[in-house]
Amino acid sequence: MASAPQRSRSYRSPGGALDGARVLKIVILGGDGFCGWPAALHLSARDHDVAIVDNLSRRNIDNELEASSLTPIRPIGERIRAWEELTSKVIAFYNFDVAQNYHRLLTLIADSRPDAIVHFAEQRAAPYSMKSSYHKRYTVNNNLGATNNLLAAIVESGVDSHVVHLGTMGVYGYNAAGMKIPEGYLPIKVEEDGKVIHREILYPTDPGSIYHLTKTQDQLLFAFYNKMDQVRVSDLHQGIVWGTQTGETSLDERLINRFDYDGDYGTVLNRFLVQAAIGFPLTLHGSGGQTRAFINIQDTVRCIELAIMSPPQKGERVRIFNQMTETFRLIDLAEMISRLTGVPISHVPNPRKEADANDLEVENCSLIRLGLDPIKLNGSLLKEIRDIAKKYAHNCDRSKIPCVSMW
Amino acid sequence: MASAPQRSRSYRSPGGALDGARVLKIVILGGDGFCGWPAALHLSARDHDVAIVDNLSRRNIDNELEASSLTPIRPIGERIRAWEELTSKVIAFYNFDVAQNYHRLLTLIADSRPDAIVHFAEQRAAPYSMKSSYHKRYTVNNNLGATNNLLAAIVESGVDSHVVHLGTMGVYGYNAAGMKIPEGYLPIKVEEDGKVIHREILYPTDPGSIYHLTKTQDQLLFAFYNKMDQVRVSDLHQGIVWGTQTGETSLDERLINRFDYDGDYGTVLNRFLVQAAIGFPLTLHGSGGQTRAFINIQDTVRCIELAIMSPPQKGERVRIFNQMTETFRLIDLAEMISRLTGVPISHVPNPRKEADANDLEVENCSLIRLGLDPIKLNGSLLKEIRDIAKKYAHNCDRSKIPCVSMW
Repeated sequence: MASAPQRSRSYRSPGGALDGARVLKIVILGGDGFCGWPAALHLSARDHDVAIVDNLSRRNIDNELEASSLTPIRPIGERIRAWEELTSKVIAFYNFDVAQNYHRLLTLIADSRPDAIVHFAEQRAAPYSMKSSYHKRYTVNNNLGATNNLLAAIVESGVDSHVVHLGTMGVYGYNAAGMKIPEGYLPIKVEEDGKVIHREILYPTDPGSIYHLTKTQDQLLFAFYNKMDQVRVSDLHQGIVWGTQTGETSLDERLINRFDYDGDYGTVLNRFLVQAAIGFPLTLHGSGGQTRAFINIQDTVRCIELAIMSPPQKGERVRIFNQMTETFRLIDLAEMISRLTGVPISHVPNPRKEADANDLEVENCSLIRLGLDPIKLNGSLLKEIRDIAKKYAHNCDRSKIPCVSMW
Repeated sequence: MASAPQRSRSYRSPGGALDGARVLKIVILGGDGFCGWPAALHLSARDHDVAIVDNLSRRNIDNELEASSLTPIRPIGERIRAWEELTSKVIAFYNFDVAQNYHRLLTLIADSRPDAIVHFAEQRAAPYSMKSSYHKRYTVNNNLGATNNLLAAIVESGVDSHVVHLGTMGVYGYNAAGMKIPEGYLPIKVEEDGKVIHREILYPTDPGSIYHLTKTQDQLLFAFYNKMDQVRVSDLHQGIVWGTQTGETSLDERLINRFDYDGDYGTVLNRFLVQAAIGFPLTLHGSGGQTRAFINIQDTVRCIELAIMSPPQKGERVRIFNQMTETFRLIDLAEMISRLTGVPISHVPNPRKEADANDLEVENCSLIRLGLDPIKLNGSLLKEIRDIAKKYAHNCDRSKIPCVSMW
């Protein structure tokens, strides 16, 4: 990687890796974002016909928060031109708001008849969603409006697109009392007057923020449209993403992915790594006894691909996968980074209403069965991310690191 | 009751019936509608300080559907002036959209500091919600926007208003497999590797239309704001309402309540009664084996009052009551009306995706414990409603009776 744009003449499509798999038409809603952009490149690299829909809301929120990606992300037009220059692959781009502009979405689906629609078009930060009434309302209206528009448009168009949605492990909450969290559905027993009924239900939700709440409400939308109209849906309940680059985004600096380190959008491990890079004590919320599920961004894009390539059958209920590979206590992560870097830990009061400590055991065999080979947290990958953090440390605004959204 | 406006000089406030209960400030969102208007009058009659918020959306939907109430409802201004003329009681009225105009709602709550806010500000017809993508989107955006705005405004204002929300029995679905449907919460047992966990969860939902879906999503909003901000909420899962008039709406024709008979908004028993009044065969969807829960409109307003007068404690979880008094199979209702009137039954294909037949047993002791003395379906009340239907039969547009919304 170089800081000046450069053409990688040696790029070769990894398409053959799919062993002659069908080339699909894929629309990515929110394809300019942190997961959306690397997913778009990953799928385009594998010869799928990719179109991005994005209203650039994440960049606009940067403006609102007076924050920005640590890495120098380029405008979407430049990104797409660089990708074509490097690979001769064309990614279409449509700038509109999925939650507001139903007719544009309907027309796109009806005209392009995509095999799969990846739905990242949601506000995705818990702290942002809790900043004020405005942010609660924006998150609810945007996220549910986008999901409902997508499902209604699929039904109205009559196009049998497979919806691949990014959910969150946060729908389950962190109170499983020693039980392993299943993939979406929970077998239960109900007893009354000696009668016993066995049922399998959507796992009862316990969201910790308005953002997480919207994903629990999305689940009900998916279940409804699936039952009524047999819309095919894969809902991927993702853990906290760490890392920033993938094989494709590393090809050229013009393709570089976002790296958020601010108190609203920075995910915990990435925040620690930036803090370590600039010698800022690692801010740990509360005791750090919170256990959370994690996944590397390279596995994220691979999981999206796996879900797309093995779609559910028509009539199959909503397929729910837990898209995570490891669990860690936050204190253990902080201590590991602290040991690696010598930067101390700073315990700060937890800005969130959540349990101070919890166990977490999660079922995740479905994506592994489809072929995911998990990238585990290890020193060399951490070093790679630290190197990026160091390289762009001059872009870091230290005042943006603390979480100022309290709830 | 007379067809010309007349002043009832004999009106005496039933306020004393509350035995010196506190006079409360009550805001009724959607107070111009079928349940909202009689609830507003019922509470005003009992000396509470009542304000109505309504954007007249229900009247505007009449315009859209080219349908109208069988009864000659008056403009809200005339209604309120008539009520003041008759009783000297003043009901304030604010015309704005709760889902769209957050700041107006916030200001109203902050300024008036209501003890209770009754939330009827939702699109409430299942067939309407399923007519088209537009109607699905309107119902989701309106209903969830209204509920989220209300909850966010309560938190932002710091006013501890008790939210009394009209839910629906339809959140439960109709697949209880012989078990009695509890009031909102279901005790379950989860087993794993010999460990057994007992939990009480929100009853797993199974909505049959977008309208019902929004009420299942409302439940998640209530649970969230209750957990995070201790917002006090009573969610009243109401059965299908029958009847039209209450003690207060009968006082003067200018106060008359809506009576919907069209395929979108007419509730089943009221539709049968209008059909009987004009000699139109009673349209029964499918076999009529569907069992549903019912409640008379007079009990509706009484339940709202009971919920308001016994609010939950701060910190108490969302209180869920089943607001219904009887269950009937639709075929039995149709046969009863047919026997009473000689009008035949016409079996039509069911326009809805739902089970052709189901059992239904419902727990409803909470409101009865608070003092509800249920009005059961009986000949004299049916006759009163038939008389209204007959009196206004000349307003009936027969072409509006069949349900044309299919799903």
